[in-house]
Amino acid sequence: MSSNGQVVLLAGGVGGARLAHGLQAHLGPGLTVIVNTADDVERHGLLVSPDHDTVMYTLAGIDNREWGWGLAGETFAAADMLGRYGEETWFRLGDRDLATHIVRTARLRRGDRPTVIARDLQRSLGVAATILPMSDAPVRTEVRTDDGWLAFQDYFVRLHQEPTVHEVRFQGIEDASATPEVEAAIQAAEAIVIAPSNPFVSIRPILDVAGVAAAVQGARARRVPVVAVSGIIGGAALKGPADRMLVSLGHEASALGVARQYVGLIDLFVLDRIDAALEAPIQALGMRTLVTDTIMAGDPGRARLAGEILQPALDR
Amino acid sequence: MSSNGQVVLLAGGVGGARLAHGLQAHLGPGLTVIVNTADDVERHGLLVSPDHDTVMYTLAGIDNREWGWGLAGETFAAADMLGRYGEETWFRLGDRDLATHIVRTARLRRGDRPTVIARDLQRSLGVAATILPMSDAPVRTEVRTDDGWLAFQDYFVRLHQEPTVHEVRFQGIEDASATPEVEAAIQAAEAIVIAPSNPFVSIRPILDVAGVAAAVQGARARRVPVVAVSGIIGGAALKGPADRMLVSLGHEASALGVARQYVGLIDLFVLDRIDAALEAPIQALGMRTLVTDTIMAGDPGRARLAGEILQPALDR
Repeated sequence: MSSNGQVVLLAGGVGGARLAHGLQAHLGPGLTVIVNTADDVERHGLLVSPDHDTVMYTLAGIDNREWGWGLAGETFAAADMLGRYGEETWFRLGDRDLATHIVRTARLRRGDRPTVIARDLQRSLGVAATILPMSDAPVRTEVRTDDGWLAFQDYFVRLHQEPTVHEVRFQGIEDASATPEVEAAIQAAEAIVIAPSNPFVSIRPILDVAGVAAAVQGARARRVPVVAVSGIIGGAALKGPADRMLVSLGHEASALGVARQYVGLIDLFVLDRIDAALEAPIQALGMRTLVTDTIMAGDPGRARLAGEILQPALDR
Repeated sequence: MSSNGQVVLLAGGVGGARLAHGLQAHLGPGLTVIVNTADDVERHGLLVSPDHDTVMYTLAGIDNREWGWGLAGETFAAADMLGRYGEETWFRLGDRDLATHIVRTARLRRGDRPTVIARDLQRSLGVAATILPMSDAPVRTEVRTDDGWLAFQDYFVRLHQEPTVHEVRFQGIEDASATPEVEAAIQAAEAIVIAPSNPFVSIRPILDVAGVAAAVQGARARRVPVVAVSGIIGGAALKGPADRMLVSLGHEASALGVARQYVGLIDLFVLDRIDAALEAPIQALGMRTLVTDTIMAGDPGRARLAGEILQPALDR
């Protein structure tokens, strides 16, 4: 692995943040994370960008390890007061986290680009890597349930991912294009990694932004390795509804089901030892496989998995 | 004193809030406070309305008695994080207080009237009285110092009221008019009280809003008593720069200097025992006087002073 390696990670929230943290331990500023912004949501007039912020807090080392989300030492005094004012409180924002949304929203209203704002927030927190919103244009995921179309966070947070998802769409995607920063990062990449994030609501929106999938294909044409990591282990998602979504969207809740989402896009698929029996059918999809321990326990576990992914990706 | 008395109080921040609290103890929903909004300020993209909020928190019984400002049990986690992001932190907003500004700003952006928003916030906190912004139009106090014109909170908070004030102006005042609610409250008033607030930057902007001074004069013509309470005791302001402003604006730093600001507007001037010697010169201005203890110690002190003011005002 070259320590000057330029690596791009496509990522959603928590699972993506952990792998990003492991990759940053190896690559430092060589890592660029392109994050999903299709689960952004406006709360109390403030723009919240959950995946970006989860990755940012994690890479800054101020994430709350105990909870698995949010900021270390977070408090909820403002949220309690918002509740007294009759505001909906199902999307509960911590006091420190609120500061992020306040600064972001104020700068957006002044006309600054989301990418520029995000970079400034990251620098303020001392993040070594670069985290890029997938686009500067607003894109919003919606899921079709038995009760019709729902905004993503309605489904994800308010309804605790309980409704069955029959369809996914990304409002605004037709007007979203890759930023110059996203294009340059993919152009410069020596390896591209797809995080163990939800293929349908975390990775797909990134790939559907005009210019992103084409840039990834362009990198492949230059023999840049593209690697995906399974977020499904033993048929279950470590976090979130990816396993149930795989089934309700007509697929198989397994690492094989995940690998099928990336056919034609990736060269290497990373799956857990527990799923080793799926190696042959996954290879039959036209990709190499790497079987390892994909559960990232603590900082050492994150760095280990990142190292194992970078080894075959960068030392060709 | 009639318990059905409809009383209007013109007020700024802390001193006004204390007298408002005492009046509310007697009048409950019979009290309407018309608050100065000319020291409103935008911070981090949020509209902060310090005088309104000080009066609201005080009337809701959730003010911080120890500090004399802000909310009881207030914390500053968001402010610390805003500082990490490089935001100016001289106007430090507490976590609970932030919720107020977040709700206000979100509703303003949706097009709601400041008066309607303020009333909803007050009701949420269980305030018995009515607190009305002096106008729905934005007005901003500026003070001329040796370094030129400064926005009020720059002078008041950032520079700790240290510069000498040579002149005061209210940006936007020419476009500000009394709301229907303010007009109706003055119309219905059986007594009008001017709080022991700063005459130049708390009371003057209220009176300069088109329609307010005329409505007060109309009330006087209907023999509604108008009472002012001195915020200067023994030549010094209990809080804030009113004493220094009196001098730098060419007046006398005394209860007499305050009374002179209200000549032709009030019938009764309330001054402290310590200033009893000023009774005769104040009466010579064409107003009656009430000499009492004007320092409000705790809830009993607030209610006592309020009662003493209401006695001559309502039992004519």
